[in-house]
Amino acid sequence: METTAKEMKTVNGVNVTQLFETIDLINNTPQISRFKFRATNRWQHGTHNRATVKDFYGALQEDDSREPMRFEIDEPPVLLGENLGANPVEYLLVGLSGCLTTAMIAHAAARGIELRAVESRLEGDLDIQGFLGLSEEIPVEYQQIRVHFKIDADLSEDEKGELVRMAQKYSPVFNTVSKPVSVLVDLDEE
Amino acid sequence: METTAKEMKTVNGVNVTQLFETIDLINNTPQISRFKFRATNRWQHGTHNRATVKDFYGALQEDDSREPMRFEIDEPPVLLGENLGANPVEYLLVGLSGCLTTAMIAHAAARGIELRAVESRLEGDLDIQGFLGLSEEIPVEYQQIRVHFKIDADLSEDEKGELVRMAQKYSPVFNTVSKPVSVLVDLDEE
Repeated sequence: METTAKEMKTVNGVNVTQLFETIDLINNTPQISRFKFRATNRWQHGTHNRATVKDFYGALQEDDSREPMRFEIDEPPVLLGENLGANPVEYLLVGLSGCLTTAMIAHAAARGIELRAVESRLEGDLDIQGFLGLSEEIPVEYQQIRVHFKIDADLSEDEKGELVRMAQKYSPVFNTVSKPVSVLVDLDEE
Repeated sequence: METTAKEMKTVNGVNVTQLFETIDLINNTPQISRFKFRATNRWQHGTHNRATVKDFYGALQEDDSREPMRFEIDEPPVLLGENLGANPVEYLLVGLSGCLTTAMIAHAAARGIELRAVESRLEGDLDIQGFLGLSEEIPVEYQQIRVHFKIDADLSEDEKGELVRMAQKYSPVFNTVSKPVSVLVDLDEE
C-alpha cells in the first residue's frame, strides 16, 4: 500500500483505491474479513437503559481506539417511559437506514457511479400486544418495515432501482432483519 | 384513570399501575396497541450518514411531541470511514440490548420481581466478504449474535434464567432479528 494521497481515487467520498486494496487483501487472506462488533448495556431505571459501543475485532486485531459512544434508550410516556432517548425498535430502524445507505454508496462508488444526495424514510408496524404478552397470535416482532429512498443523481429510474436492489443485497442489517439470525442469550458465568 | 400519584405502584421504576391500565385499555380497544415507528436518514459523505428519530403513531394518534434525536453513523478507518459515529451493525446491537433489557425489566415489574441491576454485553460475528460481494456462500448478515446478561437481584440462578427467557420471548428487536421480517425497499414516488 504505497499509494500516496495524490493517487487515491474517491467516489461519493469513498476511497475507492483503499476499497479495492482491501478486496485484494481479503482475497489473499480471507480471515481479515471476519469482524466481531460489540455493545454493552446497563439498565438505568424503568424503561431507561444506556448502551455503549467502543471496541471491535477486525482485520486480525482488536481495535480499542475509539472513544466510547453512549446511547440513551427509553420509551415515550404512552409506553411507560420518559422520552430520555429513542426506543429500541427505533434504534433498529436507525441501523437499517444507515446500513442500506452505506451499502448503496459503497457499491455505487465501486462502479464509479456518482451520487449527489441520498435520503430515506423508514416505517415499521409493531403491535405491542406481542410485547405485553396479551396475544399468542400477534407477532412480537415488527410485522413489516417499509423503506423509501430518494436518490439525486444523473441516473434513470431503472438505474436508481438497481442501486436500491444493490443496497438490499449487500446490507448486513437488511439481511439480518429479513432473514432468521441466531441470537444466543444467556446468564453471564461468574 | 383517576388514580393519583399516591396510588401508583412502581416496580423497577416501571409504573405498574399504568401498565395494567394500558393492558385493560387494549383489551377493550385492541387497535390502540398498533404502533408505527419511524426514522429518516440523509447521506452525508462516504460512509457517514445521519439518522433522525422523532414522530411515531400509536394509541390511535400521531405523536410529534419529541425533539428530533439525531444519530451519526459511520465506519472505522479499516472499513473506509472516519469514526464519526457507531456503524449500522453496532446500532442494531444497541437496539437489541435495549429491547431485551426493557422486556426483562417490564415483565419482572408486572410480576412484582424487584431487580437491583441488569447489565449485558453483546457480540456479533460478521464476515465483510458478504458486504463487499466477494462470496456468494458467505452470509451478508450477522452469522451469530451472543448476549450475556448479569442480573443483581435476590433470585436463584433458575429464576434469573427465567427472566432471560422472558426477555427473549417478549422483545420485539430480539424477535425481529431471530425471525425473518418483511422489509420492503423502494424508490420514493414523487
